[in-house]
Amino acid sequence: MAKRNPHLAKLQSGYLFPEINRRKKEFLAAHPQAKLISLGIGDTTQPIAPPIIKGIVQAVKRLGKRDTYTGYGDEQGITELRERIASVLYHGRVKGEEVFVSDGAKPDTGRLQMLFGSDTVMAVQDPSYPVYVDSSVMMGQTGPLSSKTSQFKGIAYLPCTPDNGFFPSLGNAKDAGVIFFCSPNNPTGAVATREQLKALVDFAKENRSIIIFDAAYSQFIRDENLPRSIYEIPGAKEVALEVSSFSKSIGFTGVRLGWTVVPNELCFDDGTPVRKDWNRIMTTVFNGASSIAQYGGIAALEREGMKEMERTVSYYMENASIIRQALRKLGYTVFGGDNAPYLWVQTKGMTSWDAFSFLLQKAHVITTPGSGFGPSGEGFLRFSAFGHREDVLEAVKRLEKIL
Amino acid sequence: MAKRNPHLAKLQSGYLFPEINRRKKEFLAAHPQAKLISLGIGDTTQPIAPPIIKGIVQAVKRLGKRDTYTGYGDEQGITELRERIASVLYHGRVKGEEVFVSDGAKPDTGRLQMLFGSDTVMAVQDPSYPVYVDSSVMMGQTGPLSSKTSQFKGIAYLPCTPDNGFFPSLGNAKDAGVIFFCSPNNPTGAVATREQLKALVDFAKENRSIIIFDAAYSQFIRDENLPRSIYEIPGAKEVALEVSSFSKSIGFTGVRLGWTVVPNELCFDDGTPVRKDWNRIMTTVFNGASSIAQYGGIAALEREGMKEMERTVSYYMENASIIRQALRKLGYTVFGGDNAPYLWVQTKGMTSWDAFSFLLQKAHVITTPGSGFGPSGEGFLRFSAFGHREDVLEAVKRLEKIL
Repeated sequence: MAKRNPHLAKLQSGYLFPEINRRKKEFLAAHPQAKLISLGIGDTTQPIAPPIIKGIVQAVKRLGKRDTYTGYGDEQGITELRERIASVLYHGRVKGEEVFVSDGAKPDTGRLQMLFGSDTVMAVQDPSYPVYVDSSVMMGQTGPLSSKTSQFKGIAYLPCTPDNGFFPSLGNAKDAGVIFFCSPNNPTGAVATREQLKALVDFAKENRSIIIFDAAYSQFIRDENLPRSIYEIPGAKEVALEVSSFSKSIGFTGVRLGWTVVPNELCFDDGTPVRKDWNRIMTTVFNGASSIAQYGGIAALEREGMKEMERTVSYYMENASIIRQALRKLGYTVFGGDNAPYLWVQTKGMTSWDAFSFLLQKAHVITTPGSGFGPSGEGFLRFSAFGHREDVLEAVKRLEKIL
Repeated sequence: MAKRNPHLAKLQSGYLFPEINRRKKEFLAAHPQAKLISLGIGDTTQPIAPPIIKGIVQAVKRLGKRDTYTGYGDEQGITELRERIASVLYHGRVKGEEVFVSDGAKPDTGRLQMLFGSDTVMAVQDPSYPVYVDSSVMMGQTGPLSSKTSQFKGIAYLPCTPDNGFFPSLGNAKDAGVIFFCSPNNPTGAVATREQLKALVDFAKENRSIIIFDAAYSQFIRDENLPRSIYEIPGAKEVALEVSSFSKSIGFTGVRLGWTVVPNELCFDDGTPVRKDWNRIMTTVFNGASSIAQYGGIAALEREGMKEMERTVSYYMENASIIRQALRKLGYTVFGGDNAPYLWVQTKGMTSWDAFSFLLQKAHVITTPGSGFGPSGEGFLRFSAFGHREDVLEAVKRLEKIL
């Protein structure tokens, strides 16, 4: 009588990164002496900066004293953090009450599926961050995976390729209630221009779709002409919510802290404010991000913390520049890596997984196979710019030797 | 085109505790001088003990140094913590690999709904922790709420009343694929005996149901004859998973740390191991509990930490004893509070919300209306034993004055 959720059976293999981890462990078991360098998963390596550590330690110590101890906080997050995100990162374009603090963009994506339920059609960029599609499948929004197309029935895939400059034709999203859109993009490293985002917002308005804008990498945008938030586009508050994260910019991948902005203006087609349902979901199946992490976020948004954030981001972007130059010298076509911590590299004809295995075996360098992000990622590898400088330099040296 | 999840519309009012909070704020706005004492929400008040604080601070400092910094951890939790939970809290009855660390029992309950999907019938104790029913409604497992019975169509309610000693007749669960069972119980404070849990396990086996055993309050059991885990019952690993938490025993309500045990033996009716699907869900829509919180959990399970856990639990249980004695002296029938931090008190004929308002208005004491936990909770109030001793004593004094 206890039946399996039939939608889980539709998911074929493991989630991409655990699968890479499995192959890495297998390789290490066979070659215990190998010194692997990871340019694969976007995992941070720079330590958390002193002013942020200080803010966290102070918060922890308060929890150890009777008079300053606090238990449950609001599920939506500490008011001071919400306000600071709104003022410092959004320059007042959104209100503190519209910011819902979370334990990260990935868990929020799972909860966002609850917001829309199983009858919604999702559109995703192809390639894209696998959690959009996987969580959509789990929620029962799709049919089975087609072995022919490597696509799930019921999801609208929007191919992003060099041919369209990685900005998709939106016509395919006509039936979509929800459009996932990520900029700076994971995995392609492409950043949508103001005009492109305006086209996206216009389309969503016309089509009465809701955009889930994934801005987890917005701090990596160096070019001041490129929009860091969907809310830089007039009218976007009526059609978009925005998911974001502290993971990469201040080294919080393990600490867990992010947020989702749900504007008061955003409504479902029956007029119900999306924020009302999101609040219900967050208060029912979430219990707040760790208060310790939240005080770290508060410290990060003070003047000293922001300086450190800049410094951390610059460090990784310098890595990106080193990798990009090296690969281009070796004759590879490389996209991204100028306003995003990811480089999207054409494999010169190998399949993604073959290229992944080749670099693992020959250079002991871990990358991420592009096909893991969707069918249009076939023939690409994603290089991550996270890592210690000397490891990046060593990886580049090894690549120069074998390629 | 962006449609509201129709199941969210079925949820009538807000989640119970935000609703209480709203009424509290309303009262305070009208009576700004009132010194409210909360015996309502089960929120911890004792500071986190020194050895645990020390473990956390050390973990934070490691994150600030290049050589000891760590980013993403395994979504399932730090191996050392999983092993320690298995050995220290389960005495080896479960394996470390069966323990999945989480950010708490409440968010895990939401994810558990994904494990079973929308076609499953849930059975719940009535009264019960509201998140079971609310998350089930969100997942689409139910029909609408009946205004007559205050029950959702499609959920099997198992009344727990003084007449059955708060252990339900299981016949009502015949159609249930999943049975939520909480012991020590929130809200009634009842603890199931070994014989009762054996009956539950036998029923689940016979009925081929899966039990979600909520053991979040197991550390509060003082009577050594009472089982602290469902796995003390032979054969339970084939029919039960167990959700638990560090929130109350070490003051981690704001820090966020819990776990769910999914035994290798537990399978769906088609033979698929539940653990396989749970692992897929946890790696896809979860990113691990904060590493900082996890190192706190590791410290808590060392000898010094365990002593402090005992001390914290004893403190709250002494509160429970004080409240129980006072209310009994005032002629109230009181259940629970001997092996659980909750007391379940008959209101002498008032409705739960009227009794709640009466105590708020007259004694400035906040409780939780029993009807908020389900129809069979009508006519009861839940008193929580969390609080500073002097506040509990003051609350008792006020109750003695007005009752």
